[in-house]
Amino acid sequence: MARIYNFSAGPSMLPEPVLRQAQQEMLDWQDSGMSVMEMSHRGKHFMAIAEAMRNDLIELLAIPSNYKVLFLQGGASAQFAMIPQNILNGKTKASYVNTGAWSTSSIKEAGKYCEVNIAASSEDSAFTTIPAFDSWAIDADAAYLHYTSNETIHGVEFSDVPDVGDLPLVCDMSSNILSRSVDVSRYGIIYAGTQKNMGPSGVTVVIVRDDLVGLAPRTVPAVFDYQQQAKADSMLNTPATYNWYLLGLVLQWLKQQGGIAAIEQHNVHKAGKLYQAIDQSTLYSNPVVKEYRSRMNVPFVLADAALDKEFLGLAEKSGLGSLPGHRSVGGMRASIYNAMPEAGVDALIDFMAEFERTH
Amino acid sequence: MARIYNFSAGPSMLPEPVLRQAQQEMLDWQDSGMSVMEMSHRGKHFMAIAEAMRNDLIELLAIPSNYKVLFLQGGASAQFAMIPQNILNGKTKASYVNTGAWSTSSIKEAGKYCEVNIAASSEDSAFTTIPAFDSWAIDADAAYLHYTSNETIHGVEFSDVPDVGDLPLVCDMSSNILSRSVDVSRYGIIYAGTQKNMGPSGVTVVIVRDDLVGLAPRTVPAVFDYQQQAKADSMLNTPATYNWYLLGLVLQWLKQQGGIAAIEQHNVHKAGKLYQAIDQSTLYSNPVVKEYRSRMNVPFVLADAALDKEFLGLAEKSGLGSLPGHRSVGGMRASIYNAMPEAGVDALIDFMAEFERTH
Repeated sequence: MARIYNFSAGPSMLPEPVLRQAQQEMLDWQDSGMSVMEMSHRGKHFMAIAEAMRNDLIELLAIPSNYKVLFLQGGASAQFAMIPQNILNGKTKASYVNTGAWSTSSIKEAGKYCEVNIAASSEDSAFTTIPAFDSWAIDADAAYLHYTSNETIHGVEFSDVPDVGDLPLVCDMSSNILSRSVDVSRYGIIYAGTQKNMGPSGVTVVIVRDDLVGLAPRTVPAVFDYQQQAKADSMLNTPATYNWYLLGLVLQWLKQQGGIAAIEQHNVHKAGKLYQAIDQSTLYSNPVVKEYRSRMNVPFVLADAALDKEFLGLAEKSGLGSLPGHRSVGGMRASIYNAMPEAGVDALIDFMAEFERTH
Repeated sequence: MARIYNFSAGPSMLPEPVLRQAQQEMLDWQDSGMSVMEMSHRGKHFMAIAEAMRNDLIELLAIPSNYKVLFLQGGASAQFAMIPQNILNGKTKASYVNTGAWSTSSIKEAGKYCEVNIAASSEDSAFTTIPAFDSWAIDADAAYLHYTSNETIHGVEFSDVPDVGDLPLVCDMSSNILSRSVDVSRYGIIYAGTQKNMGPSGVTVVIVRDDLVGLAPRTVPAVFDYQQQAKADSMLNTPATYNWYLLGLVLQWLKQQGGIAAIEQHNVHKAGKLYQAIDQSTLYSNPVVKEYRSRMNVPFVLADAALDKEFLGLAEKSGLGSLPGHRSVGGMRASIYNAMPEAGVDALIDFMAEFERTH
């Protein structure tokens, strides 16, 4: 059948030119006589692929030279444990901001390794906002402050970088990395799973400032010790080679789109259209405070939840896939990452208008 | 160019029909309108892929019902740390057998979490043999015994399963899983990275007996706690979905070859031919005790090491790739996993004979 518009929260839609190139090169990468997935990670072909991918990421995010860029496994979820294990550095406390399901998970996991200070939380408002920075109560003894820049389930996104002074700022950017400009130098650590804006699942990008590398105690597994992986070019264990290659193809595509400034403009435009359609309707609504609405994940509910099933069934028949909201919140959710074309958002808006007209 | 015979130790050659199917399905898996790598891991399409893959592995290895089968990340190297962390269960010692580079690495990592008893080692004989089982000195207080069934660098492979009584037997089968029949019920844990006989890199299969599940202390990261991942069908974090799919295609291919009994016969035949060619030559030699020669990784040296470079250069020009031995041992190494066709082994043997004739 024709390719659908896939609104999945991740793994999610990929740029079609990336898939076409991967398809074309599947059995023989650039006259090497091998698929990329068959190559030794130590061989010259794969080393070139890895080097180009790393350099493209550094270029796109303008990562300063005093940061290490690691490509690990285990997802952001593994980092929930590995961040405190790597950088507590003898301290016993860390500050966390709770703005939704993913920050809640990171807090739960960190609690195994240190005392967690909740510096701020929007739980009382059902995660529909971001707590004002001047209300945050950061523990003076915290080793770092952690927050989640975009929450996929609740559709809430930071619009600015919190100022935490000299305290290392740690951010889970899994769901909005590469979608908007970011000043990496404001951060101690940025980490992100690849399966939203960077490629298929299976790689975790960890960007870590040099002063936070080399603090891990001996009990941290070698493959999760930032220093050991940095020294080994993230090849202490066999990397997920094909996933690195696909990440590289997505980065090349992003450069062809004009880089982050261009894609950010595109994302603002796409999300603006969709929120406008929701706000102008009497059938659809989104509960998030406008300033903090996510450009990546747009949850919405129908005025009559009894219509949900019909809405989703008709949407799927119209080639609009993966629109059910997360089971914990219900309703609908349209994830519109970098790779979702404007035509996909337009098709959704048209479908929603027609559904409203007929219901 | 034409596809080469790729003797890489891993990531390594994959069956061409697997690559062709992946290529054909790249943009649209079975009329889903999506690439597998774009699918939500919770959606019906991917759930079906995952279920079929798991069932095929259980069928091929005849895994008894009292074992959990997990598909994790971080490679066997992550398991080097996670095995003691998961199953020490209050004990402070574990026994390890050292038969090469990979067991050495597993021992080093385990030493972070417990006292390691070296029950046996072939280090004194440069890892060219397997210590006789009746010489093993297993610590009475050990929580488990760990060994590596095949060493890729030294080319030495266990020909039988050690008998350790009631002690949980833990085996790193990364480089020979699915290449020979195995009685899973003899083991407490079998684990293996996928990048040799199972698919591309990026997945770690962990087969763990029920009594060893649920012993992890709270400090084990959730994504590496066998019990938590078993309950979550290995989806506690977003799995490496495309890698699962490719693993599934390789398993289907293996079933079409007649399963493990058939591929084992094929592997015995391929390795036998190559070792015979080496033994009959005056130029090539392999130092491993015959009974323990690996069927998967065949290291060999030239009588005159000055010829190595020319041998490797001419081999590459003849479409025989990735033949250099590991940098720690030098010489050559031909890795001939399940996916290496007999024609590839024949081409290597012919090349070696012609090289010997002309040098």
